[in-house]
Amino acid sequence: MEALDYHAEERRKAEFDLEEMKIVWAGSRQNYEISDRMARLVASDPVFRKDNRTMLSRKDLFKDTLRKAAHAWKRIIELRLSEEEAHMLRSYVDQPAFTDLHWGMFIPAIKGQGTEEQHEKWLPMAYKMQIIGCYAQTELGHGSNVQGLETTATFDPQTDEFVIHSPTLTSSKWWPGGLGKVSTHAVVYARLITGAQDHGVHGFIVQLRSLDDHSPLPGITVGDIGMKFGSGAYNSMDNGLLRFDHVRIPRNQMLMRVSQVTREGKFVQSDVPRQLVYGTMVYVRQTIVSDASCALARAVCIATRYSAVRRQFGSQNGGPETQVIDYKTQQSRLFPLLASAYAFRFVGEWLKWLYTDVTQRLQANDFSTLPEAHACTAGLKSMTTSVTADAIEECRKLCGGHGYLSNSGLPELFAVYIPTCTYEGDNVVLLLQVARFLMKTVSQLGSGKKPVGTTAYMGRAEHLMQCHCDVERAEDWLKPSVILEAFEARAFRMSIACAKNLSKFSNPEDGFSELSPDLLEAAIAHCQLIVVSKYIEKLQQDIPGKGVKRQLEILCNVYALHLLHKHLGDFVTTSCITPKQGALANEQLRLLYSQVRPNAITLVDAFNYTDHYLGSVLGCYNGNVYQRLYEEAWKDPLNDTVVPDGYLEYVWPILKQHIRTARL
Amino acid sequence: MEALDYHAEERRKAEFDLEEMKIVWAGSRQNYEISDRMARLVASDPVFRKDNRTMLSRKDLFKDTLRKAAHAWKRIIELRLSEEEAHMLRSYVDQPAFTDLHWGMFIPAIKGQGTEEQHEKWLPMAYKMQIIGCYAQTELGHGSNVQGLETTATFDPQTDEFVIHSPTLTSSKWWPGGLGKVSTHAVVYARLITGAQDHGVHGFIVQLRSLDDHSPLPGITVGDIGMKFGSGAYNSMDNGLLRFDHVRIPRNQMLMRVSQVTREGKFVQSDVPRQLVYGTMVYVRQTIVSDASCALARAVCIATRYSAVRRQFGSQNGGPETQVIDYKTQQSRLFPLLASAYAFRFVGEWLKWLYTDVTQRLQANDFSTLPEAHACTAGLKSMTTSVTADAIEECRKLCGGHGYLSNSGLPELFAVYIPTCTYEGDNVVLLLQVARFLMKTVSQLGSGKKPVGTTAYMGRAEHLMQCHCDVERAEDWLKPSVILEAFEARAFRMSIACAKNLSKFSNPEDGFSELSPDLLEAAIAHCQLIVVSKYIEKLQQDIPGKGVKRQLEILCNVYALHLLHKHLGDFVTTSCITPKQGALANEQLRLLYSQVRPNAITLVDAFNYTDHYLGSVLGCYNGNVYQRLYEEAWKDPLNDTVVPDGYLEYVWPILKQHIRTARL
Repeated sequence: MEALDYHAEERRKAEFDLEEMKIVWAGSRQNYEISDRMARLVASDPVFRKDNRTMLSRKDLFKDTLRKAAHAWKRIIELRLSEEEAHMLRSYVDQPAFTDLHWGMFIPAIKGQGTEEQHEKWLPMAYKMQIIGCYAQTELGHGSNVQGLETTATFDPQTDEFVIHSPTLTSSKWWPGGLGKVSTHAVVYARLITGAQDHGVHGFIVQLRSLDDHSPLPGITVGDIGMKFGSGAYNSMDNGLLRFDHVRIPRNQMLMRVSQVTREGKFVQSDVPRQLVYGTMVYVRQTIVSDASCALARAVCIATRYSAVRRQFGSQNGGPETQVIDYKTQQSRLFPLLASAYAFRFVGEWLKWLYTDVTQRLQANDFSTLPEAHACTAGLKSMTTSVTADAIEECRKLCGGHGYLSNSGLPELFAVYIPTCTYEGDNVVLLLQVARFLMKTVSQLGSGKKPVGTTAYMGRAEHLMQCHCDVERAEDWLKPSVILEAFEARAFRMSIACAKNLSKFSNPEDGFSELSPDLLEAAIAHCQLIVVSKYIEKLQQDIPGKGVKRQLEILCNVYALHLLHKHLGDFVTTSCITPKQGALANEQLRLLYSQVRPNAITLVDAFNYTDHYLGSVLGCYNGNVYQRLYEEAWKDPLNDTVVPDGYLEYVWPILKQHIRTARL
Repeated sequence: MEALDYHAEERRKAEFDLEEMKIVWAGSRQNYEISDRMARLVASDPVFRKDNRTMLSRKDLFKDTLRKAAHAWKRIIELRLSEEEAHMLRSYVDQPAFTDLHWGMFIPAIKGQGTEEQHEKWLPMAYKMQIIGCYAQTELGHGSNVQGLETTATFDPQTDEFVIHSPTLTSSKWWPGGLGKVSTHAVVYARLITGAQDHGVHGFIVQLRSLDDHSPLPGITVGDIGMKFGSGAYNSMDNGLLRFDHVRIPRNQMLMRVSQVTREGKFVQSDVPRQLVYGTMVYVRQTIVSDASCALARAVCIATRYSAVRRQFGSQNGGPETQVIDYKTQQSRLFPLLASAYAFRFVGEWLKWLYTDVTQRLQANDFSTLPEAHACTAGLKSMTTSVTADAIEECRKLCGGHGYLSNSGLPELFAVYIPTCTYEGDNVVLLLQVARFLMKTVSQLGSGKKPVGTTAYMGRAEHLMQCHCDVERAEDWLKPSVILEAFEARAFRMSIACAKNLSKFSNPEDGFSELSPDLLEAAIAHCQLIVVSKYIEKLQQDIPGKGVKRQLEILCNVYALHLLHKHLGDFVTTSCITPKQGALANEQLRLLYSQVRPNAITLVDAFNYTDHYLGSVLGCYNGNVYQRLYEEAWKDPLNDTVVPDGYLEYVWPILKQHIRTARL
């Protein structure tokens, strides 16, 4: 059984060095080794089993999550894992839990917004998990508009305390993960009021539950907000609601790195630049982009492997039917997603570099690149997560009917992934920020201010408005310079067209609002350009391993040309390319698919996902799909008995025509 | 509380007669009245409550389904409901159940494929539900390719029986609804073997379970295939697996209307035209299109109402924030879906007429329109269900974070809807059939054979290849003739381009396969044209009621112009319109959104959905969303106790630093 591999022949077809590709995917040999070790650690531990997860009731699922979180913490301590290893271990456990927020939001919030003194007091307890924290920002009535939050923190100079209060129903904190049933503490965002003055939204550390018996402290109403999308999925998380009835906390629990309230109740701004906030945003969004590539890769891995197992039609003389991966309709939907996974991976890698760069500049008080870096990460967060969410569902469809079964892994992956499009900035709101930045950049072009970073291309305005694509044959579309110029010209001309239309409005805000759908499209064009250009930059690096670079080039071309085909209207109406050139791109795309085909299975093997992590019968490594589907079916609780519970009360009376007299 | 209506002001804005619009939506006053009566009947009956559905375990959910099905049957008998009323009642119960298959597939299969004699024997029992049946076609390894099914029915002349057998694992029947735990009988599709001859796939009535104690009959292995996408949703259905080990049935249980096996084992074809099958397909797919408009309308109703409740940003001087429905980004995503709901409704209505027309022609032995009718329904099934599935998810996103809560109703609606894209013909396979038909039609253009029905426009080949769109100002895009010609020219030129490219291949099948992604796009263009043209035809009818026709015209233009914008590349590269005309269409579209805005709430009220049927806190009629969200949250089982189950074992040891010694 161990030796069984239905994909063996597919794997023999590969034209590149798999081990080197795995390292490219992981970013470095070291990353690869840590990641591989952590994945195996989780996969081999029976406590981390998750194949029955979608069948558990909410309560059982939640208890299972608590158990896994405790076990993970135990293993982290026993094995003395580094912070990075611990993070990876948790991510391979692959079950949203309160620990995600404790480590990912509560601790970073204190680190970023707390003073040295506050760090010394709170961080050691948090690192040891003597307290468990969450991040209570969003309210029932206020998501995207953080400045509209209603919770108040009113300073009482009499007692040197803040009074935290929920004045309205809509001010109830709503959504914070880990809040519902577990967190002992929270960083709560509230409007700071001193005297009669409202100083806007600030963060406060508030204890929510007793450290003795876990009961909510006086004045605090806290609970879970209820079931979310899907079975399993995010229901393992206790997203919570929270109301304050005049809850008092000491003054020193306001996070005071940027602003302070003195003993006398005076509001003071420190000299710490407020822009620091943007640095944190760049960091968080960078991780989201990297996670997007992981989630997308996971879905693509499942769909690709099953597309090689599944056969339909085309049987000749009673021989086997055609593998669905050989159909061009399948390839034209699947391979662009495979290419996108690699493209997002590389742009995520670049964002890591960008974060380092931004951090160094901040330390040197250089804020010049910050707006551009902020816009760029906002746009990439929006674009990659939206594409990934849709792609997971597309991969499910690519698996045919069986993709609809929970044990295909795709329904839960979709359900657990989609909140990413909303949290840390709603994707549409973020794109509008990008658009705003683009319009500003365009408006400054004449002023001599040079556009920087990912908008640097806009500095070549004259060229980009005039250039003509010189593709004459399909293979001309393989040249990176040709692709890059087409994407730059398209993005730039769309921005210019928006700016021109905006200038017709006497009130710029009215214009921005009225033209916002067009502005979104311009922002997307810009973000796609960034991904394409970073991929092309990646290919200019030295990439070892037989055939590895070649495969990555093919995927890069697939990525760019499928976008070109999808947004053909943009390219043609801006005269960046002719209809004929569009048709040639499409022709080239088909040829590229044939080149991806023999390498497809191995290209998804390079993600190095364990069967445990994939959690998919359809995507299992050895491809023994049908046997496993059959075996898994019998595990459903409905199959515990031959005759189902309810038969005697509700089915028998129908069959025996006793329904009129039945008591239902 | 009853009088509370947060939408009252929105409702006052409406510029049309709501009651008349309800009748337009329902198709007729009679439909409206029946539908209204059945919806209220279900909504007012506590047995049909469904607000706790997503929290139930699989077993409890299934038992709840059996209970509802029995209660519905009881009410149907008590109230002596007509077949149509009964069907509507079941659809308002809104919980997939074995009865769907019994009434929707088992009985129609016997009616369509059985002889008079078989009707007399089986239908009375089925109508009284003395037997409960399902439709066992799909196998573990065979979905779309029905001719590839592996189950065998071998005639044994010795005993005058068929031996039904599952020769392989992949021949296990897989997916049939109602099969897993309930059905006593099934129409089973199997390869008919007489002597050594394989006569292809035919239907057989097979008893599966004892009518006494419900245990599976000898040789039959049957069970549920396990959890599917989402919580609640389709998990109320016992989709099943089924294996036969040489199960014997009498010869007269083969459905023999079209083909027979004689006592001697001779295979005989009757003179009943095989095309009858297509008639049934037209019928089934017509209902799917009609259901698509219902599902889409439901999602749009929720998103529209909540978009008027939800406010975000734009507060001026401490006043309320802006309703998100006032944002152009929201309108440009939501209103095209609202327009699509109406468009699908009208094309569904037309398909009902088409089915009647086809039936009458079949009775008169006129098969001339059948291929076109078949292609047209296949295409519309594919297009409307794909759009609806995506639109439900888009509506969820349009509700922001709260759309992710189960009680928004959208997660379950999505989960329960998406199989429609796969069953009754996979949407991609169907579009390829349409493409094939289009290529055939194009190839016959020169031969003097006139294209009929929805392909009639292809008869004006010369004109469509040469015509130029004469739009000069945005408002020119409001003319139906202009829109229609642009859509006809685009669809036709895309088909012609495909045909031209196909002709370059020496083997037409290779060409079809290689160019299939382009062919899909041509098929979609054709289907969109059908919807647009049927909507325009609808508007030529007499439509009473103040302002009703005007609203429908606006929505028709929104529908057409949003498609034009979305597929701008198609229209421009085929030179049907110029880039400038594309920009004018987009400009007009924005103006149309402003005209939809004041009527939006009332346009979704016209669907006449009860709060019970909508099943959405966000979409409730009176708009009291936040209060209800807050109340619903407390009903989650996790809130049964203040301290969650698992705290002592898994959280306390962490907080108290006893994790190393904890037994997890």
